Amino acid sequence: MTSLNQIGKQAQIAARQLAILDTASKNKGLIAMANALIANQATILTANKQDLANANEMPKKFLDRLMLNEQRITDMANGLRSIAQLSDPTAQIDRGWISADGLQIIQRRVPLGVIGIIFEARPNVTADAAGLTFKSGNAVILRGGKEALQTNLAIAKVLREALTQSGLPADAIQMIADPSHQSAQEMMNLTQYIDVLIPRGGRGLIQRVVKTATVPVIETGAGNCHVYVDRDADLEMATAIAVNAKVQRPSVCNAAEKLLIHKDIAKQYLPTITHALIDHGVQLRGDETAREIVPEIIPATAEDWDTEYNDLIMAVKVVDSLDAAITHINDHSTHHSETIITNNLERGRKFQEQIDSACVYVNASTRFTDGGMFGFGAEIGISTQKLHARGPMGLHQLTTIKYEITGNGQVRK
Amino acid sequence: MTSLNQIGKQAQIAARQLAILDTASKNKGLIAMANALIANQATILTANKQDLANANEMPKKFLDRLMLNEQRITDMANGLRSIAQLSDPTAQIDRGWISADGLQIIQRRVPLGVIGIIFEARPNVTADAAGLTFKSGNAVILRGGKEALQTNLAIAKVLREALTQSGLPADAIQMIADPSHQSAQEMMNLTQYIDVLIPRGGRGLIQRVVKTATVPVIETGAGNCHVYVDRDADLEMATAIAVNAKVQRPSVCNAAEKLLIHKDIAKQYLPTITHALIDHGVQLRGDETAREIVPEIIPATAEDWDTEYNDLIMAVKVVDSLDAAITHINDHSTHHSETIITNNLERGRKFQEQIDSACVYVNASTRFTDGGMFGFGAEIGISTQKLHARGPMGLHQLTTIKYEITGNGQVRK
Repeated sequence: MTSLNQIGKQAQIAARQLAILDTASKNKGLIAMANALIANQATILTANKQDLANANEMPKKFLDRLMLNEQRITDMANGLRSIAQLSDPTAQIDRGWISADGLQIIQRRVPLGVIGIIFEARPNVTADAAGLTFKSGNAVILRGGKEALQTNLAIAKVLREALTQSGLPADAIQMIADPSHQSAQEMMNLTQYIDVLIPRGGRGLIQRVVKTATVPVIETGAGNCHVYVDRDADLEMATAIAVNAKVQRPSVCNAAEKLLIHKDIAKQYLPTITHALIDHGVQLRGDETAREIVPEIIPATAEDWDTEYNDLIMAVKVVDSLDAAITHINDHSTHHSETIITNNLERGRKFQEQIDSACVYVNASTRFTDGGMFGFGAEIGISTQKLHARGPMGLHQLTTIKYEITGNGQVRK
Repeated sequence: MTSLNQIGKQAQIAARQLAILDTASKNKGLIAMANALIANQATILTANKQDLANANEMPKKFLDRLMLNEQRITDMANGLRSIAQLSDPTAQIDRGWISADGLQIIQRRVPLGVIGIIFEARPNVTADAAGLTFKSGNAVILRGGKEALQTNLAIAKVLREALTQSGLPADAIQMIADPSHQSAQEMMNLTQYIDVLIPRGGRGLIQRVVKTATVPVIETGAGNCHVYVDRDADLEMATAIAVNAKVQRPSVCNAAEKLLIHKDIAKQYLPTITHALIDHGVQLRGDETAREIVPEIIPATAEDWDTEYNDLIMAVKVVDSLDAAITHINDHSTHHSETIITNNLERGRKFQEQIDSACVYVNASTRFTDGGMFGFGAEIGISTQKLHARGPMGLHQLTTIKYEITGNGQVRK
């Protein structure tokens, strides 16, 4: 088995080659990868059957994420084809100027270098992440969950062969074949070779990486998102948005977990919204005031306000004022996405200004926090930290800058 | 003594207030801080005398960094006044667009929140860092070295009083009064309150923070910088640049530590440049080939190529080609600043494209890597990592983005 150090070294060499590759060659590689996935789907499905057989004691939800079929492989291939159509961020010069000393300073966009991705069960991450990192000129080291190991290795092998056949460096895409705890630890500390780590998966995985890694990490995907219905909201709109934000896809990070309601409309509105949510199968938990108005609401514990359910559960709180809503959200949110429903311009502005989250909405569902919905074309994750990238991360967020400075003999006085 | 948790909480409250403060009020605060430094210089100098007395066993170089006088306090005050004149990055909207669903998406520039700064002996960092973080709308928690504790506390007290007298939140600037190892550890893990940590000081300090902190860190200040003299260089220019990059201020991170020379010009040029450097008091270490040409050069060890001397020492290597120079630099550099001296356009472009460092020069001294020289007005440090900020960090790099999204009832299909 190749040592992680060796994998890192190979990735760094590939990254240097990728950094100077033109856009057309990268697109050629992406199309070759897409074609290879289709051509080799039998092999990939055989590997996947093996993983599924080994994992047959796992919950059904888990097996569904792990399972591939022809349609899912076609989707992965189409994903790579659409990445080929996106514009290349590293073909961009951000700005340039002449300094006081007459130096021409150009701020270029360049790849980050080597990106490490630690992820859980979904094997489609292998193709998606490889496509995005490749298009942005980065080498990638992938480490998937042990349950998907055979599938991930099969996909990576197909992608690497496609690169080789296109005359491109196969080591741009490497999958770690050792799914042990120790290999993850080593990867998190491979500062010599890995420039950035992006964990993708549940809260447990992400927190472990954030706490352990010495390689810089981009934290993604935690979403304790709030819907706040202000006193002068359009209540029909509020119901449509709250229901959409909660139930349209409850398992994802931009789904709403909390509903705050201004006290002036609580008596009138709470029964309506409660029953709309219950009709959609949502279990409601709430504070005292909410429960006095609608007894079907079960009591919320202090812990509820900080919990991301990723399920058909929502906690409801009646707040005294817009300020109280803002304070509650800033104190309990994971700083992902929040929305206010209001017809009052000033109150909408205040909410957007004072809420400290990546995406702050007025009169729209939190479910729009998504690279595709934003028009970024594809996304590698949604950052909930403030450094480097915040909110949906597309190709641009997989790049950094470099200053190219040209003089004619300048020395510093 | 206030607990670090309490300090964090206070900083977060202040940060929320600062985030919505207008530029004029922030500038008023900066001017008040500058005036207060001058008005209270006697108190600050008394505290400084106490620190100097306690540190009298330390090396002279160290004491010089620690020592304040009227001129140095005036410089700190003028620094704050010039920060007041810089434009406010958080008054900026980067871009905006209408999404396919009709959402208006605005990408605003906002403060990072709470910035932690861990630094060593120079007490002027207290005023500089407080000024830059305040202007960019951030609260700051400062932790200086124990040798400068009384001075740092005196400066922070003066700055905080100036804020209070201006009706601004004093907790925007907090200095940790406990200089123990434990307080530093706690600070590095205060993820609940600190958004970013910026260590300022020697390599030991920075590496300790990078290795230990769970709060996101921006790594600054390591500079193993290279000057490469290509075969078709203007040799007079090369000498001027190499000497300037090495000796103009050898203790700083953008000073050159290594000199690479193309083999075709080594015999002719090496004696000239060697003697120019020796005349400026530089000790030269070199590889075999260099030593055969100039016997005064002492042998370099393998370790030399990775060492940042911060002193009048330079290691010289003769390289076979431009490619060899690029590979050597990418393998040994700290990715800070490198320069090529060449008259060949294509070779200059190749060097700039393939060198993986923050600042890559053609025909200019590495000493220009500096926020002031770049025209950023002031700098909080020079980032040698690729995430978030790379190269000189001014006010802009102390901010992040927020998406403000306004709709009219959009839900996701």
